[in-house]
Amino acid sequence: MAQSKTAVIAGVGPGLGESIARKFVAEGCRVGLFARSAEYLDDLAADLGDDTVAVPTDITEPDQVEAGFREVRDEFGPVDVLVNHASGGAWRGLRDVDPDEFERAWRVSAYGALLCSREAVDDMLAADGDEDGGTVIFTGATSAVRGRGGAIGFSAAKFAVRGMAESMARELGPEGIHVAHVVIDGQIETPSVRESRPDRDEDEYLDPDAIADSYWHLVTQDRSAWTLELDLRPHVEEF
Amino acid sequence: MAQSKTAVIAGVGPGLGESIARKFVAEGCRVGLFARSAEYLDDLAADLGDDTVAVPTDITEPDQVEAGFREVRDEFGPVDVLVNHASGGAWRGLRDVDPDEFERAWRVSAYGALLCSREAVDDMLAADGDEDGGTVIFTGATSAVRGRGGAIGFSAAKFAVRGMAESMARELGPEGIHVAHVVIDGQIETPSVRESRPDRDEDEYLDPDAIADSYWHLVTQDRSAWTLELDLRPHVEEF
Amino acid sequence: MAQSKTAVIAGVGPGLGESIARKFVAEGCRVGLFARSAEYLDDLAADLGDDTVAVPTDITEPDQVEAGFREVRDEFGPVDVLVNHASGGAWRGLRDVDPDEFERAWRVSAYGALLCSREAVDDMLAADGDEDGGTVIFTGATSAVRGRGGAIGFSAAKFAVRGMAESMARELGPEGIHVAHVVIDGQIETPSVRESRPDRDEDEYLDPDAIADSYWHLVTQDRSAWTLELDLRPHVEEF
Amino acid sequence: MAQSKTAVIAGVGPGLGESIARKFVAEGCRVGLFARSAEYLDDLAADLGDDTVAVPTDITEPDQVEAGFREVRDEFGPVDVLVNHASGGAWRGLRDVDPDEFERAWRVSAYGALLCSREAVDDMLAADGDEDGGTVIFTGATSAVRGRGGAIGFSAAKFAVRGMAESMARELGPEGIHVAHVVIDGQIETPSVRESRPDRDEDEYLDPDAIADSYWHLVTQDRSAWTLELDLRPHVEEF
Repeated sequence: MAQSKTAVIAGVGPGLGESIARKFVAEGCRVGLFARSAEYLDDLAADLGDDTVAVPTDITEPDQVEAGFREVRDEFGPVDVLVNHASGGAWRGLRDVDPDEFERAWRVSAYGALLCSREAVDDMLAADGDEDGGTVIFTGATSAVRGRGGAIGFSAAKFAVRGMAESMARELGPEGIHVAHVVIDGQIETPSVRESRPDRDEDEYLDPDAIADSYWHLVTQDRSAWTLELDLRPHVEEF
Repeated sequence: MAQSKTAVIAGVGPGLGESIARKFVAEGCRVGLFARSAEYLDDLAADLGDDTVAVPTDITEPDQVEAGFREVRDEFGPVDVLVNHASGGAWRGLRDVDPDEFERAWRVSAYGALLCSREAVDDMLAADGDEDGGTVIFTGATSAVRGRGGAIGFSAAKFAVRGMAESMARELGPEGIHVAHVVIDGQIETPSVRESRPDRDEDEYLDPDAIADSYWHLVTQDRSAWTLELDLRPHVEEF
Repeated sequence: MAQSKTAVIAGVGPGLGESIARKFVAEGCRVGLFARSAEYLDDLAADLGDDTVAVPTDITEPDQVEAGFREVRDEFGPVDVLVNHASGGAWRGLRDVDPDEFERAWRVSAYGALLCSREAVDDMLAADGDEDGGTVIFTGATSAVRGRGGAIGFSAAKFAVRGMAESMARELGPEGIHVAHVVIDGQIETPSVRESRPDRDEDEYLDPDAIADSYWHLVTQDRSAWTLELDLRPHVEEF
Repeated sequence: MAQSKTAVIAGVGPGLGESIARKFVAEGCRVGLFARSAEYLDDLAADLGDDTVAVPTDITEPDQVEAGFREVRDEFGPVDVLVNHASGGAWRGLRDVDPDEFERAWRVSAYGALLCSREAVDDMLAADGDEDGGTVIFTGATSAVRGRGGAIGFSAAKFAVRGMAESMARELGPEGIHVAHVVIDGQIETPSVRESRPDRDEDEYLDPDAIADSYWHLVTQDRSAWTLELDLRPHVEEF
């Protein structure tokens, strides 16, 4: 970890995205924050400090993704770490889902991750002679490994992302790029959860800071022993 | 099997699609054949006989799917069996894939299957009081369970389809609709394979008629013992 | 199916074992019935008719397994089909399980299946020049793919069996022997279930005759499209 | 990590076992080393220092396991961390395996792990009021998730271990005990590998120290985000 890494969190938001950004900054990374809302990102970047840059981006738009990565490169240099973290809803079953909503879930989760991965991997491959070629982490969910009844759009999108991650791991591992997929099994304790359920049993929630520790562990793994997939869940979670 | 079933094969083509159609007709079904080429479908329907109807359809177009199902219903009555068989290419890795090609693979495999499933399941649910509520079979591939390096679009699309199948099985099983996903592991002996590799070892290929036998077995399973997923491969296949 | 097959059901009992035997006899097989109780087997063989032979056998004892197969061969010729159906309890968690009970579950499910498979596969391999080399089916359970809390012995044994089945499928497929593993997910409607829960909702149980239909389908599959694994569950089962 | 943990490595040996022991000691643990050879263990303990104790133990013998844990407790107090690391060979297929060898693989991998887990978990559960209840890590292999042709004993044993781990995770997670299973996919660079293949490409081997880092990460995970399973492989490994 001699040298500072440049990271992009694509799809940052209150909860896990923020915790990952905070952890990466604490570990010495400089972080590009991608989300659609400029206002939200500005506040977050101000809070996280000078090693972050707010890059308002709709990751489903090729031009915006290209411009976003250009901005990060201008600010912090070539990208070493990408977290594909964006994810769309579509929590309805076949009988109720709207095809547009089904498409939207895929576009945010899978298509957006494709666009961001192409940009980031270009940087990583260009870093020739560098042993540590880079890391791409995908945020997955239980519905990525077990299609959920009543959530066909979310399930199809999360499965697609897992298929991408596996394909990329096989393609890019030999090039020195570490691709990993994290299956988050359970509910994350976001600020909105804290507000809406003040009397909840905290044991039943994933602490986003704890998740971020495992994301960072993936970044630091030596390339002789890389993880493609790990799951994370609260100790009391039924599964 | 007292009564004739109405089936739709969405994405019929030389090889497995044709074998499924032929098997279903032989078992007494009346079959709607969906593909884009009217010419191809007319020849096929002529060959398969009066229990089939050629329905030129681009399954990625909602209007065409709706019209196609209407035509089948007019001809043969409500749909009892749907085979989601269409599949798009995108056999390139992250570094080479075009985002449009990535999207196309998803649109043909997953989005098209969503549109067809909505239509077919509407019929199945309307068949009230009927014990045998209907069957939806998805044609899967090895890349649906193991993302293939160098085929990110195909892997993402086939994973998405498997996620849909699992989601639908959980949603629709209790409604009496059987959803199944078939993992075809290996190469199918299509007419074009027969032509281009006359000296091949036939043992290394899946016989599409043999696959069709297992599709039909899925249709006939009693609802007290339904299969969600089975794999099929040649006896010499390495896996 | 021109010629009669010789089958062994190792671990037959009221419920699924009997249904498989009955189905196989109905399809023209001659069946060796293995279980520990001579009395039970004699009654069953009398009921099923002349194409069965009762072979009282403790499948965890090498000598008895050898003698049992010899008896079947003497009666009906070399074995073409083996169903490894025996299974031991051990439905307790780590804190409560007795090591002997943990061992017993493994010995009945895995070790017994090894002994029987060795005998049966010897016959199958000796049937030289025969296209249809033989079939070995393992009866699995949900706990073979998802270790159950509170059932460590059963889970370990059922996982072991699945590992054996996969290993054998890879070793023996190229030799023309079909190895399959059936994941039964749910409760089977056995005679004792019928008696003890006369008011049950039948929809919630697997009909053993319906399961037997899928076992027979596995036996009849063409070797160009063999299934290694399929799952079976009632249509209302949550999973 | 305020307080020193007591760990047991069951089945320590040159290569990964040693690396885990060394890492745990470096992180402040006191470590009980279990293996059959007293001579080997004495040398290792001398090398690793005062925070280790050599405990010659055949983990397949209940009495020896009990005595071994007693010795560790006497030396270092109740056990907080157990690594079930022992594993037996049996790299032959159904046609060649000896039933005793098949049994031995299971006895070392699964039965031995059961005996050790019972002892360790007793300690962990007794540590009442302690938030950090303890950790049990199982060393798995590719053959734990994909039965290998020609290695039926190893595959059955490794599958069994994975089933145990899943069962224990579900039973003991709510009690505050973290159970994890590590799928090691590839060959570890042990001293004997270094000697016998001096010209090897080091990229093709897992560095045992790198693996040990991920084992330690599992120990440090917060219980709001525990991993049940992760895989580890060299960046060039085909999979």
